[in-house]
Amino acid sequence: MTETNTPFGMTITATDGNARTGVIQTCRGEIRTPAFMPVGTAATVKTLKPETVRETGADILLGNTYHLMLRPTAERINRLGGLHKFMNWQRPILTDSGGFQVMSLAKLRKITEEGVAFQSHIDGKKHMLTPERSMEIQRLLGSNIVMAFDECTPFPATEKETEKSMMMSMRWAKRSYDAFHDGSEHAEKNALFGIVQGGVYEHLRRHSVEALKEIDCEGYAVGGLAVGEGQEVMFEVLDYTMPMMLKNKPRYLMGVGKPDDIVGAVERGIDMFDCVMPSRSGRTGQAFTRRGTLNMKNARHVDDPRPIDEDCGCSACTNYSRAYISHLFRCGEVLGLMLLTEHNLTYYQDLMAGLRGAIAAEKLQIFIKDFHEKRANGDVEPIG
Amino acid sequence: MTETNTPFGMTITATDGNARTGVIQTCRGEIRTPAFMPVGTAATVKTLKPETVRETGADILLGNTYHLMLRPTAERINRLGGLHKFMNWQRPILTDSGGFQVMSLAKLRKITEEGVAFQSHIDGKKHMLTPERSMEIQRLLGSNIVMAFDECTPFPATEKETEKSMMMSMRWAKRSYDAFHDGSEHAEKNALFGIVQGGVYEHLRRHSVEALKEIDCEGYAVGGLAVGEGQEVMFEVLDYTMPMMLKNKPRYLMGVGKPDDIVGAVERGIDMFDCVMPSRSGRTGQAFTRRGTLNMKNARHVDDPRPIDEDCGCSACTNYSRAYISHLFRCGEVLGLMLLTEHNLTYYQDLMAGLRGAIAAEKLQIFIKDFHEKRANGDVEPIG
Repeated sequence: MTETNTPFGMTITATDGNARTGVIQTCRGEIRTPAFMPVGTAATVKTLKPETVRETGADILLGNTYHLMLRPTAERINRLGGLHKFMNWQRPILTDSGGFQVMSLAKLRKITEEGVAFQSHIDGKKHMLTPERSMEIQRLLGSNIVMAFDECTPFPATEKETEKSMMMSMRWAKRSYDAFHDGSEHAEKNALFGIVQGGVYEHLRRHSVEALKEIDCEGYAVGGLAVGEGQEVMFEVLDYTMPMMLKNKPRYLMGVGKPDDIVGAVERGIDMFDCVMPSRSGRTGQAFTRRGTLNMKNARHVDDPRPIDEDCGCSACTNYSRAYISHLFRCGEVLGLMLLTEHNLTYYQDLMAGLRGAIAAEKLQIFIKDFHEKRANGDVEPIG
Repeated sequence: MTETNTPFGMTITATDGNARTGVIQTCRGEIRTPAFMPVGTAATVKTLKPETVRETGADILLGNTYHLMLRPTAERINRLGGLHKFMNWQRPILTDSGGFQVMSLAKLRKITEEGVAFQSHIDGKKHMLTPERSMEIQRLLGSNIVMAFDECTPFPATEKETEKSMMMSMRWAKRSYDAFHDGSEHAEKNALFGIVQGGVYEHLRRHSVEALKEIDCEGYAVGGLAVGEGQEVMFEVLDYTMPMMLKNKPRYLMGVGKPDDIVGAVERGIDMFDCVMPSRSGRTGQAFTRRGTLNMKNARHVDDPRPIDEDCGCSACTNYSRAYISHLFRCGEVLGLMLLTEHNLTYYQDLMAGLRGAIAAEKLQIFIKDFHEKRANGDVEPIG
């Protein structure tokens, strides 16, 4: 899959209630929605070869501007032919703006109207990230879906703080738009997404959506959620924010989430997700299954000849027992991380495929009922 | 590949000087010789799926009795269907006797005529390894080539010490033989190899070979080498030991070695090798190439778009640059370990395939000259 001249766009093929399923066209191929994007922070989805990531069912990866700008640097990746070639993933890549991660640096960063000055967590070197620099980095990487530079409003925040932060994000969104549309081939072929902020305040979310509509981005993300507000509040924000948004453009809920978060957000009209949970949990021994979660480090698995999930077709479940994977974790073997990451990402992609199929068949409510029932009667082994 | 009724045996198809090439038949499929066996210590070749190990060209793996008896235990592996099923490797497996590793425990072990009493390096629990127990463990694992329990004579050792140690190993070899041949289906289908000891003393090596001939094992290993004596002395021992051995049985040089060790040993008539070097080096950033070794952590690779080895067809060399692999090592990414281990094992297997082809064509000396010339004019970046 190399680059084509296909223009960016979304086709919705079916809806069920507020949920939608369809396809996002990009110059690097199609993304089936609702889509889950595995996170490839440092130009690799940790512990997996890209062909294995594809085998799990992923159509698109997420890359992190913050990590890549520091190491190996966007300029180096560009000299080496761009991020797709560098990491051997030829399908679509979405890059975040770096905003969320520099905000998380706490003491090491300073936010002004211009942007964010920060020190690298690796070597303490000083950097500046602005809307213009973020667009430049994402262009150097060759990103197919570029995210506007924004401030992820912390939670909790007062209405006043949230408004101030959101208003700056909207000014930054306009600067991102102007910088993105620089007449380059990259801008012509690829897409810029704006990010809706406004915390848990309906009128601020509305203001943010309206501001972004004026900017005319090719897709919209919902930011500032999954930051501690809880699932109920998150769903409430989605309930009133989704109807404000244009129907014909992709909607991306950033950093979400647990399987039941995803199911509820799809029900409310979200098309795209990213989260480190399946890959990070895989590295700590937690397995997602249709019947709940397992902690593969628990002693009860050491003699268990069953696969992690009998309904899963991934290579970890086809070829290995819980006993073997438990053994690998006990010995600190890398293969344990590899197999569990592959399984968890397959679980997430199977969930997305199930949601897509259910929406297409207008059977989403039946799917959701079954999803919750299986889990309620199954295992819950939170990791220690 | 499941178990068949093929009896164990070796067919030598060509010779060139003292070197031989051929096939070892086992109930789990054929082993092309000269063969290199990747080491799968804890029921996994570290960082690789078994299908990837096979793709490197491996016909057979080595498993470690010592590690497996402690964790997850031979009894557990047996209950779960044996080592092949447990680790999803259906081709031949050779297991060592555990002797070498318990000897290395130094203060934690005590050697008597009966065997070796030792404490686990994991939990300090007391265990006893005897020829009889070693045979039992290797049978429980379902090993296709079982190694006799022996004492790996330390180096340096006086003639007297070496003789005493070798004589005990020969008594243990007889006990191993008696315990192995217990009338089980396992014993009928699989093979026991004896281990020649005798250090750097020709008459002791002769005594050891003669003792093993009386026991009538199905293959012979050369033990007690690659323990610090240096390549010149090792080759000297092989020069006088090889002609003493039966021509129609496999000859296995244990724990060897560097690529030039292997080339010299094949020239002297060795058929089988095992060594952790390609896999362990892969995890520390060292790459083997036809032109020498590279340290992927060196700064000079960070912008290099070339593959590790332009003549290598492994997936690491086909899909990734030195710059990318260098980036992965700098970030501590698991994929770096995976790719470099895969490459190094492919390098070793390609070397074996080259040796087999050269012997079959009676062009071994030309192959060896070319092997040394390429390295002499190439890179040498020892790891730091």
